[in-house]
Amino acid sequence: MVAKRSSESSESSEESLAPKTVVAQGTFDILHPGHVHYLEQAAAMGDRLVVIVARRVNVDHKATPICSARQRRDVISALEVVDEAILGHEEDIFVPIEELEPDIIALGHDQHHDGSAIEDELAARGLECVVKRAGPREPKYEDELLSTRLIIDRILERRS
Amino acid sequence: MVAKRSSESSESSEESLAPKTVVAQGTFDILHPGHVHYLEQAAAMGDRLVVIVARRVNVDHKATPICSARQRRDVISALEVVDEAILGHEEDIFVPIEELEPDIIALGHDQHHDGSAIEDELAARGLECVVKRAGPREPKYEDELLSTRLIIDRILERRS
Repeated sequence: MVAKRSSESSESSEESLAPKTVVAQGTFDILHPGHVHYLEQAAAMGDRLVVIVARRVNVDHKATPICSARQRRDVISALEVVDEAILGHEEDIFVPIEELEPDIIALGHDQHHDGSAIEDELAARGLECVVKRAGPREPKYEDELLSTRLIIDRILERRS
Repeated sequence: MVAKRSSESSESSEESLAPKTVVAQGTFDILHPGHVHYLEQAAAMGDRLVVIVARRVNVDHKATPICSARQRRDVISALEVVDEAILGHEEDIFVPIEELEPDIIALGHDQHHDGSAIEDELAARGLECVVKRAGPREPKYEDELLSTRLIIDRILERRS
């Protein structure tokens, strides 16, 4: 079912067969298998995965990303499970959601976002969109570095 | 044409229509658009792209990779243009080439390998395989970091 404004007609069996768009989002500064896991889980929730890559100005809950937003978008675009990667909006993070009208927003397992606050904002904007959360990615090997922060810490430990 | 030992029958029109396997290889420590460009160019040289990811012990021309070989392989496997990613051989880098029998080995634009030395070694092992080199990736934006070393330098500059 294609995401639609709640004021529009309710679902029919025809609509429910329409491809589902999933939106995932994040910073994706230094790509690691945890990112891949999150995006694979997001892709599996629907038929088309669009990834919103946070601009530097929108990253206020952790250190400023090392790589530019465009570079991070270009790397995410190259992943097999990603149909499209776009940059986030500088002021209102819901603007691309309004444009994309996704059926599902997939949050990462450890992302700080409050799913129910997002659902409230979606409802306030008349968007019918479900918020789901991806499951955790357990380390496969002892030496996996499953966050950008861990990779950066290892770089500082080994190279500085 | 599937790669074959030179002692086998020479090519026929039927063989020349068979899918071509390309092998690319590298360290791929911190993924960036330069890696993506190299692998896209390699994939375009044939029909199936297998990437050999160097183990830490095989990286002797630059600093030891930050991420484990398995982690680097898992990230490379997730790229759309990559059909398969495998770890290199610890002692003899030509062992996976002998197993894969590729039609083409694609070197990265700035990789230190000597193409003609590789061709000589392939010939000595009876492998019919062409060595090609990918073109350079020009920066698209002013702030692109198109090497693992540049990304690590930026991390050390900003975070240490």
